[in-house]
Amino acid sequence: MISRLIHIDTSLNDSLQSQIRQKLVEGIIVGSFPSGSKLPSSRKLAKQLEVSRNTVVLVYQTLIDEGYIESRERSGIYVTSQVHQGKVSITQASNHLLKPTDNNYRFKGALATTNATSCPANWQNFPYSFIDGKFDSSLYPVKEWREATNKANTTREIYQWAQLQGKEDDPMLLDEIRSKILPRRGIEASRDEILITAGSQQALFLITQLFVNNSVKVAVEEPGYPEMRELLLHQGAELVYQPIDVTGMEVNEQLDSCDIIYTTPSHQTPTSITMSMSRRDELLKKAHQQDILIIEDDFEFESNFLGQPHPALRSLDKDNRVVYVSCLSKVLASGVQIGFIVADANVIAELRKLRKLVMRNPPLNNQRAVAYFLSLGYYDAYMMHLHKVFFERWLTLREALNIYLPNCIDTGPIQGGTAYWVTGPEQLNGEYLREKAAEIGILIEPVKRYFTTPEHPENCFRLGVTGIPNDKIREGVSKLAELIHQLTNEFEEKLSNAKGKLLNNDALQQVLPDVQLECQMVYGVPCTINLLANGEMFGITGGKDHELDSGRWWIKDGMYYRQWNLWGYGEIKGFYVIMDGDEMKWFDQNHRFVRQLELKGYNKLVP
Amino acid sequence: MISRLIHIDTSLNDSLQSQIRQKLVEGIIVGSFPSGSKLPSSRKLAKQLEVSRNTVVLVYQTLIDEGYIESRERSGIYVTSQVHQGKVSITQASNHLLKPTDNNYRFKGALATTNATSCPANWQNFPYSFIDGKFDSSLYPVKEWREATNKANTTREIYQWAQLQGKEDDPMLLDEIRSKILPRRGIEASRDEILITAGSQQALFLITQLFVNNSVKVAVEEPGYPEMRELLLHQGAELVYQPIDVTGMEVNEQLDSCDIIYTTPSHQTPTSITMSMSRRDELLKKAHQQDILIIEDDFEFESNFLGQPHPALRSLDKDNRVVYVSCLSKVLASGVQIGFIVADANVIAELRKLRKLVMRNPPLNNQRAVAYFLSLGYYDAYMMHLHKVFFERWLTLREALNIYLPNCIDTGPIQGGTAYWVTGPEQLNGEYLREKAAEIGILIEPVKRYFTTPEHPENCFRLGVTGIPNDKIREGVSKLAELIHQLTNEFEEKLSNAKGKLLNNDALQQVLPDVQLECQMVYGVPCTINLLANGEMFGITGGKDHELDSGRWWIKDGMYYRQWNLWGYGEIKGFYVIMDGDEMKWFDQNHRFVRQLELKGYNKLVP
Repeated sequence: MISRLIHIDTSLNDSLQSQIRQKLVEGIIVGSFPSGSKLPSSRKLAKQLEVSRNTVVLVYQTLIDEGYIESRERSGIYVTSQVHQGKVSITQASNHLLKPTDNNYRFKGALATTNATSCPANWQNFPYSFIDGKFDSSLYPVKEWREATNKANTTREIYQWAQLQGKEDDPMLLDEIRSKILPRRGIEASRDEILITAGSQQALFLITQLFVNNSVKVAVEEPGYPEMRELLLHQGAELVYQPIDVTGMEVNEQLDSCDIIYTTPSHQTPTSITMSMSRRDELLKKAHQQDILIIEDDFEFESNFLGQPHPALRSLDKDNRVVYVSCLSKVLASGVQIGFIVADANVIAELRKLRKLVMRNPPLNNQRAVAYFLSLGYYDAYMMHLHKVFFERWLTLREALNIYLPNCIDTGPIQGGTAYWVTGPEQLNGEYLREKAAEIGILIEPVKRYFTTPEHPENCFRLGVTGIPNDKIREGVSKLAELIHQLTNEFEEKLSNAKGKLLNNDALQQVLPDVQLECQMVYGVPCTINLLANGEMFGITGGKDHELDSGRWWIKDGMYYRQWNLWGYGEIKGFYVIMDGDEMKWFDQNHRFVRQLELKGYNKLVP
Repeated sequence: MISRLIHIDTSLNDSLQSQIRQKLVEGIIVGSFPSGSKLPSSRKLAKQLEVSRNTVVLVYQTLIDEGYIESRERSGIYVTSQVHQGKVSITQASNHLLKPTDNNYRFKGALATTNATSCPANWQNFPYSFIDGKFDSSLYPVKEWREATNKANTTREIYQWAQLQGKEDDPMLLDEIRSKILPRRGIEASRDEILITAGSQQALFLITQLFVNNSVKVAVEEPGYPEMRELLLHQGAELVYQPIDVTGMEVNEQLDSCDIIYTTPSHQTPTSITMSMSRRDELLKKAHQQDILIIEDDFEFESNFLGQPHPALRSLDKDNRVVYVSCLSKVLASGVQIGFIVADANVIAELRKLRKLVMRNPPLNNQRAVAYFLSLGYYDAYMMHLHKVFFERWLTLREALNIYLPNCIDTGPIQGGTAYWVTGPEQLNGEYLREKAAEIGILIEPVKRYFTTPEHPENCFRLGVTGIPNDKIREGVSKLAELIHQLTNEFEEKLSNAKGKLLNNDALQQVLPDVQLECQMVYGVPCTINLLANGEMFGITGGKDHELDSGRWWIKDGMYYRQWNLWGYGEIKGFYVIMDGDEMKWFDQNHRFVRQLELKGYNKLVP
């Protein structure tokens, strides 16, 4: 009978001992093997389970040591009575599954939020998941994290962190953050200027608890991080919605009446726009003039791909008015939940009291494990690795967007972050696109939740690279592009109804050689293409990471053909060409509008 | 030069590789070895550090793999430039240590609490630490916890828990709690009736956020758990202070006007009194009649030493009005911070939303590790072990109190818990005692913070057994007793000023043989002693765990001597005896009052 309760799965990594142990304990605790019942001899059980007798003997010995079972001389192995000591017997309690009751009338602090998640629970089963902040498990530093964890869990270490009180943080972790993370952001801080939090959400929660009530006016970004707005509204704050331009949150007289500014300068949530240095200076100047507190949410500072990151506001702040929030790389943080706040020591002291009230300290075993992860250099190595992986994916996504959705979308000029904020064709409904895309295995992030003001654009969506392997990105974007074309088909300009004149072979021959074309990449930088008379071509893009490529072009069957060496995956592609004044328009083999270009340095008459 | 930066400590458990790695990484990150600098060859470094070359080669190889250093052919090992990529250069940021500023005028939610801790940070250095809830590190299940942690941190497991969203809990942990912890309390619950929290403090915080605002009246125990009162007051609640008697929180008409009752029935905080079954029924009946919500804080349910524990209120509740809070054994929980709430599914759903807002979910790596700790049966084995250890200490403390502080203190009739609530002589100032005790290495817990009403007794203190090894308890209590005698000396009855008549040899000979004496143990149960004419004696105590002992007695030099076989550590002790009517009083060799007894079944005239 016992062998039917113990099923051994040899395909598992778990040792046989561990499996047998787990099943026996389960049986003893739930009462399948009640107190006083006899277990089969090790010889018999080994035979039944087809394992070596030694294996069973070792399991039995551990369970005897732990008091689950006992060996009675000349009689056998029995389940002890201690096992059920200290437990309420089931008959003693009424032991019922209660019917649900209506408690709603008691709720004084219920949240209005529907708590809609931006992503289905089974996102990993979708072949193309462009949800930002979800990570494929390949990214987790398993081996290094295990090593750090084990170092934190020795008797000697436990003796150290178990001494800490409910208010304190692990001094080792504080020192590692001071020496290995903050210098990357140009920030210096002493131990009493840092508070460890259970992730950055808790950091923001504690800050709003301390600084915000219904007398306080707070400027937030629009679009912006919804969970922070929720916290602020929960505290009764009046919100001022501050627009974003290409250099970050706008600084204007709207801010003058605010007590607090909340901003995400590294990579603005959700647009990924990096606040420029001059905007940073402007913001700090305004805050100084009007005595405004700044909450800097330094989200994803590590994923700056083009050029060096800008220093944190906290590091530029001369009068100690910036409360800085950040966390470990989200990959680690999403499970381990370690974030931190850097601020003036008296602010940290108050936050520490609040943290004690609402939770005590973030788990100390994790604090120490993260400290070791940092001190062993695994964190820095890991950051380099993530940077490489995400940069590669980020470029692949950018390239794919540019090829499959030219002249149709716009991402703005971004330098990093792990997500693209995409503005599609005017007629596109982002929410509808999201639903349809999910049906064909593509997850994109809805963006409605980032807006508060009612007149927000509906043709936006968001594509992230944290959860999708590099080799899936092109395929995913190509399918998504196809879907977007289907959805906006009726509004698209087509070859048949395009304004202007279709060029035939002769006309192409007359117009194209020695022409310079200018167009715009979807990510907001210009691209110049030179078509030489000899069939060669050269291209150069603008922006911080301007690129060069060369290729060849030719005319055939009334179409312009071209093949780049690197760009466009080096594939041959042909276009119908329509001229409309100085503007040239390309249409693909399916007569679908592709791209609009301007002729520059063009000294021939249009025929 | 590099060898001066790398100091190898062979006394550490850390491998040489690990130590060299840690120091090299440190040097690279902080800039002691800047980008592009050359490191010594493995041969040279090995020689300098006096380690095998292989060790250095292995460290170098890992650092090359991770991108810290690179090997340039025919040239050597260099620090890479990637290392400092993505970092703000120190000169770029203004990089200053800011002067503290006065932010107090901005604080809207600052806590009034002084946040005084009940215990000095270095409590483990005190030879006698009677602070409850502090654990000596010997109690931590190091090996088992490491195994559980490693199981939770395999790639396959991470893949599972990394899929969970910010609202969700680990289903494995939910099931383990349902099957291995709740049945001990007679509670059944489905997954959606359980919320995992970051310790029980967070559980209480979330509950007060949901149910309490300034329109709500809450009954709390007095004395009671201060952190809960603080949470309730923070939410604006009106508090009703409910007294405690020997069967727990009193149930009276004061409760009728309350919306919520907060109670700690298993072992009342701080008195350790267990609520009786009839009181539980009374409380539930009252709650039903008046439609009151009950918050049951099931603290230390596992440490019931005398008899079976009572079922939780939640398990007796017929109309789903109990919100149940508990956590893992505090030993584990203090570092790992896992608690849980069991309540109606719609309550849990609301709490889950709040938890998401304030923190997301408790660290998922810990959730899974605890799930394994439970599923492998380590938790139950560990509970059995703790029960044994604490029970032993608890009995030792009780015995010591009874011997060293008879007739001087009172702990009330308690059945378990890990702390004794001690009421000392009327004139004792508990706070002063605490200060003086700390000076001689004894830590006791001050109790002022458990009271809110101003007319609280000052002669109370609290002794816990979680942080003191069994073999230190007797010594600690003996020293503490000496101190208490010193402090209350002037108020104590002494042989010289005692009311009544001192018995000499002859009088003792007349009074003592065949007499039955009754006295009270400090823990509130009676003790009967029979002195037989033949010099034998027998003793029996009352209470749930009544005990028997025998011994011998004699008269010598005007004193009564006695020696128990087990009680009083089997030591010989002599007393002066004074008779005052029917009452007998004993004084020790130092003429200090020891104990008052009543003569029963005594049929001789007092001489």
